[in-house]
Amino acid sequence: MHILILGGDGYLGWPTSMAFVAAGHDVLSVDNYTRRRIAAETDSYPLFENPDLETRAQIFNSASNWKLQCRIGDCSDYSFVSEIVRDFKPDAIVHYAEQPSAPYSMLSVDAARFTLNNNLNTTLNILMAMKDIVPNAHLIKLGTMGEYGTPNIDIEEGWLEVEHNGRRHKFLYPRQAGSLYHTTKVLDTDLIWFYVRMFGLRVTDLMQGPVYGISTPESEVDRKLRTSFHYDDIFGTVINRFVVQAVAGVPLTVYGKGGQVRGYLNLLDTLQCIDLAARNPAEEGELRVFNQLTETFSVNDLADRVQKVGRALGFPVEVKSIPNPRKEMEEHYYNPKYTGLLQLGLAPHLLTDEALAAIITEVARCKDGIDISRILPRVRWN
Amino acid sequence: MHILILGGDGYLGWPTSMAFVAAGHDVLSVDNYTRRRIAAETDSYPLFENPDLETRAQIFNSASNWKLQCRIGDCSDYSFVSEIVRDFKPDAIVHYAEQPSAPYSMLSVDAARFTLNNNLNTTLNILMAMKDIVPNAHLIKLGTMGEYGTPNIDIEEGWLEVEHNGRRHKFLYPRQAGSLYHTTKVLDTDLIWFYVRMFGLRVTDLMQGPVYGISTPESEVDRKLRTSFHYDDIFGTVINRFVVQAVAGVPLTVYGKGGQVRGYLNLLDTLQCIDLAARNPAEEGELRVFNQLTETFSVNDLADRVQKVGRALGFPVEVKSIPNPRKEMEEHYYNPKYTGLLQLGLAPHLLTDEALAAIITEVARCKDGIDISRILPRVRWN
Repeated sequence: MHILILGGDGYLGWPTSMAFVAAGHDVLSVDNYTRRRIAAETDSYPLFENPDLETRAQIFNSASNWKLQCRIGDCSDYSFVSEIVRDFKPDAIVHYAEQPSAPYSMLSVDAARFTLNNNLNTTLNILMAMKDIVPNAHLIKLGTMGEYGTPNIDIEEGWLEVEHNGRRHKFLYPRQAGSLYHTTKVLDTDLIWFYVRMFGLRVTDLMQGPVYGISTPESEVDRKLRTSFHYDDIFGTVINRFVVQAVAGVPLTVYGKGGQVRGYLNLLDTLQCIDLAARNPAEEGELRVFNQLTETFSVNDLADRVQKVGRALGFPVEVKSIPNPRKEMEEHYYNPKYTGLLQLGLAPHLLTDEALAAIITEVARCKDGIDISRILPRVRWN
Repeated sequence: MHILILGGDGYLGWPTSMAFVAAGHDVLSVDNYTRRRIAAETDSYPLFENPDLETRAQIFNSASNWKLQCRIGDCSDYSFVSEIVRDFKPDAIVHYAEQPSAPYSMLSVDAARFTLNNNLNTTLNILMAMKDIVPNAHLIKLGTMGEYGTPNIDIEEGWLEVEHNGRRHKFLYPRQAGSLYHTTKVLDTDLIWFYVRMFGLRVTDLMQGPVYGISTPESEVDRKLRTSFHYDDIFGTVINRFVVQAVAGVPLTVYGKGGQVRGYLNLLDTLQCIDLAARNPAEEGELRVFNQLTETFSVNDLADRVQKVGRALGFPVEVKSIPNPRKEMEEHYYNPKYTGLLQLGLAPHLLTDEALAAIITEVARCKDGIDISRILPRVRWN
């Protein structure tokens, strides 16, 4: 297949690019280094340096005689998107090309505007280019479980059959997110569903939980091929951040009561899910939604597990609650369904003690790169 | 009250501006003439010429010794919005400042992008300026009944209590619109609800049906004070268009089967609803939603009524079905609730034969201005 990966320099985009090449596909990976720009602006550097996309592609290609192609350009610019779609003629488009930081989206008017415009325009451009140039292509869109928020009823996979006053209707599952970033993903979903209905496009929307992990099979060849691993308050997600805190000898910082439950998955399983989606495309005119997670934990569960495994490895791990910078429920019902990807063949890598120990050990090898001043939250929601 | 009206040059914004001044409020009316620009680009001129906002404000002020203020500027520019909010310190902000044409939003990639960016950025700017400058102000946002689409269950006023697997949750009523323009209003609602939750803002979202009518009490003084009356395929709404077709002696063009049911209201009732909302603001942290319509009709009902009343006035009115340029259901369930505004005191002006005859008679006086080449749809949804 011809697979176009938008946001190919990112935490998920880079390992996805390598994995599809290694599986024998023709891959074009695109980025405009927005995450690097925001990281520099906000002093949010990853655990270790990552060569840029073009350099990593060269290292990857020369190490294994692959041909990962890449282009640097802005996907919120329609002329650029339409040009690459026209030239590359993708069978599948994997869309990661969004500003992905919730704290950044809440930082300022300018950051909010950038997040809204970058994310929505990129999604619009992809849909328009599909309609006009490759109407049969399959869009694999990265949504987020955060779109659903924490409703008091079970979270179904994308859709909800409602009975009301004796009549029934199947709606997109109502979404209510906890940051502007997550809200832009809700808007993406509404926009995508509109154009799927109007133009008969094929779309899979993957409602993904927070991802953890560093290494993938393709990064074993050369350490420079590892993906960007953030533990800062802007781009770091909770498990990765806790692991860094454990290694650095500072307390794991639980926001508020720590009863916030979310669905998580291993980076290896993100790669599996994207591959399963690509090999099993949505039908014409179908918006297919999968909830992409493999297990759920509360923040307190995660802190306990990192503490237990970290201590077993000899790190004196402490846990501390700090005031919650976010506005969110700290104790709530949470029951997401996630059977769709399992039915397609997903074989989960769960967060076992062994898996956690492997990540802690890998981070410990980079201990010198940790700057503990980058961990505590700087952005408050209101 | 200090009332800021964004989109004050529009079909609704202009009569609203005059009505609030006449009721004794301090009014600042703002526009950047986007509708005039799009009308010129698409050759979609109104039935009669309308002086621009500044000229009309001068005529209005000198005729009655009022002091309607106006500013010309772009509400999708945050520096402009924050400047006027800081200077004027509104108690209420009436937000009409959006690209309102469904066909235009479906015309091209550029038109879609403009609609998305203009509408979303303007809404974001208003919310940010409220949060930072006037957190206690009341936003009166014009939504549209089109946000709901045509679900197979009753349409409640903004919210839906869902029971699912033995548990309950109250959601924003799920929305699924029929054009990109209407979809941007869905996105507005999601964005507004997010910032209402985060920042405790006060917002009333008025889900309005198509409006008909020309004159309002304040336009009686001088014909130049009448609002812009469009009957073209870009900005014309169905009742106004049928009236023009009846007067022009061309068939009333029903799209497809004509079973599309919508909720309608008289321009006079839009003014009443906005006034009621302004005098009864939403609570802090409340997104209050009203469905703003006074009665429902199918397109066939409307064609029949215009034909009957038009013939009684001596016009040889015919009705003709044409292929539907839109992608929509032409026969469907439709049962919207609309009690909230009635409870606040709305006294509806229904579409009686007399009311319809008055509009037909008024349009007939401008018969020479009708260009029948502007009526038929030029934009197809796919």
